[in-house]
Amino acid sequence: MIEGVTMDFNIWFKEKVDIVNKALYKYCDIKENKQNIIYESMNYSLFAGGKRMRAILMLGVYEMFKEDNTKVLPFACSMEMIHTYSLIHDDLPAMDDDDFRRGKPSNHKKYGEALAILAGDALLNKAFELMLSEGIKLNIDKHLLIKAMSIISESSGTEGMIGGQVVDIFCDDINDLEGLRYLQKLKTGAIIKSSALVGGVLGGASQKELLLIETFANKLGLAFQIKDDILDIEGDAKKLGKPIGSDQENNKKTYVSMIGMEESKRLLKKLTVEAIGCLEEFGDKSIQLINLCKFLLNREY
Amino acid sequence: MIEGVTMDFNIWFKEKVDIVNKALYKYCDIKENKQNIIYESMNYSLFAGGKRMRAILMLGVYEMFKEDNTKVLPFACSMEMIHTYSLIHDDLPAMDDDDFRRGKPSNHKKYGEALAILAGDALLNKAFELMLSEGIKLNIDKHLLIKAMSIISESSGTEGMIGGQVVDIFCDDINDLEGLRYLQKLKTGAIIKSSALVGGVLGGASQKELLLIETFANKLGLAFQIKDDILDIEGDAKKLGKPIGSDQENNKKTYVSMIGMEESKRLLKKLTVEAIGCLEEFGDKSIQLINLCKFLLNREY
Repeated sequence: MIEGVTMDFNIWFKEKVDIVNKALYKYCDIKENKQNIIYESMNYSLFAGGKRMRAILMLGVYEMFKEDNTKVLPFACSMEMIHTYSLIHDDLPAMDDDDFRRGKPSNHKKYGEALAILAGDALLNKAFELMLSEGIKLNIDKHLLIKAMSIISESSGTEGMIGGQVVDIFCDDINDLEGLRYLQKLKTGAIIKSSALVGGVLGGASQKELLLIETFANKLGLAFQIKDDILDIEGDAKKLGKPIGSDQENNKKTYVSMIGMEESKRLLKKLTVEAIGCLEEFGDKSIQLINLCKFLLNREY
Repeated sequence: MIEGVTMDFNIWFKEKVDIVNKALYKYCDIKENKQNIIYESMNYSLFAGGKRMRAILMLGVYEMFKEDNTKVLPFACSMEMIHTYSLIHDDLPAMDDDDFRRGKPSNHKKYGEALAILAGDALLNKAFELMLSEGIKLNIDKHLLIKAMSIISESSGTEGMIGGQVVDIFCDDINDLEGLRYLQKLKTGAIIKSSALVGGVLGGASQKELLLIETFANKLGLAFQIKDDILDIEGDAKKLGKPIGSDQENNKKTYVSMIGMEESKRLLKKLTVEAIGCLEEFGDKSIQLINLCKFLLNREY
């Protein structure tokens, strides 16, 4: 059921990464004015080699419904901006104090803390600016634009990603699976879910289809986190672009530390199978998303 | 022409402050969950005694066109959230390193740097969440909702408020009036202008009226900055809630340091008269906004 991905997928995936990067370059040109250093700092992290997983997930879901992806691109790029801002702020000395990210100095190591804070702020702000300006320019259905932005803003807020970071830093009582699941749902799961949902919303998915997409994305998001936890132990530091064992070093509660490696791998596989099961309801048009699930299951970075 | 404000205005102004604070309390209840400390930290700064100038400006402009202010309140409150987040981040050790704000410990002194960064992020995010959720709930005309959010997001971004903070921190070449004006337009002027404009947009102002509102707000914004610069020298530390002379101490270029006290006062008065001149075009309905200009001219905090 979850054998490897096809050659076909590798071409599809590379094409999507290129489309997202090209759009991001277009949206993020460096303005030559007095404050141009902020654009440099934003772009430094935005083009630091991210997998573009959230953007591609959104495109993948959207393409189950529509062929041309012009109208979904600003939202996919906004999601990458939100993800990138969260990484910049998470790396700050006051937070996780990480000097490296994807094998390069983290934003504050390169530009200093003040500009790193501002670059993060600016990327979050820009995500909304972009959805609004492109939404108007591309004449996106206003109801869908508002609904998509609403889903995204909730997922990145205090009952989503930011809330997750707060729990991660300040809650000492994450001692059971329930607590760990709560943390994951907020910190990484919320914007993975919203990426998938917005793809469906903009694609014109029905309420029933959106429920299916939500279930799929919840399973995929958890699988993604468990895979991250596994890679932190068994991964290759070079491929990951960061030292392994950092979760353990920082005493982070992870799926591996909580239920062990074997059980984590079993759960990862189970969730991937279930996520694929949701997608199969969509028939042939979900083939590349199914491949994406398999790709994420087997990824080495 | 610019004699004092009337008793009537004091009642109007207090009523507006109460309306804004009541709405903010309603929108910002503290959720009792694992991440509830983030809500505490956000509210600590949000209810630290701000003048609500941006919100009241928006309400004042809106009320020139419409009587009931229900539909403009979420936007006015969002503007206060954006203003507050910028103060929290500006006060951080990596930025202006201010231990006090409005006579109370700044957010990071009270909650630590990590939570202060996250509370700032959360307030910016919440501003958009709020406009979207209330926009849907109040059935605000979608075109106007998108236009208002677009104006706000631009004004708080890299070509607005964030850009201004970057120039303030990183540009050493602010040595003339032109440079100072560039800085002011971005750092404090942009969101004052957008507050006024959004009031007009939501109120249904015509293109010609919006241009007049823009001119008015640009003048008011500059006057506001000059008054701040004057108060930093001549103000009463107790009333201001912060020590005076801090601009000088931090070698900040201000209007007073650049053109002197007398000329600054002359310019402040001139701009206030011109701002009032724009408002007089609207006839009787601009009476309280005109009073607001006079109030800001004479304020002691």
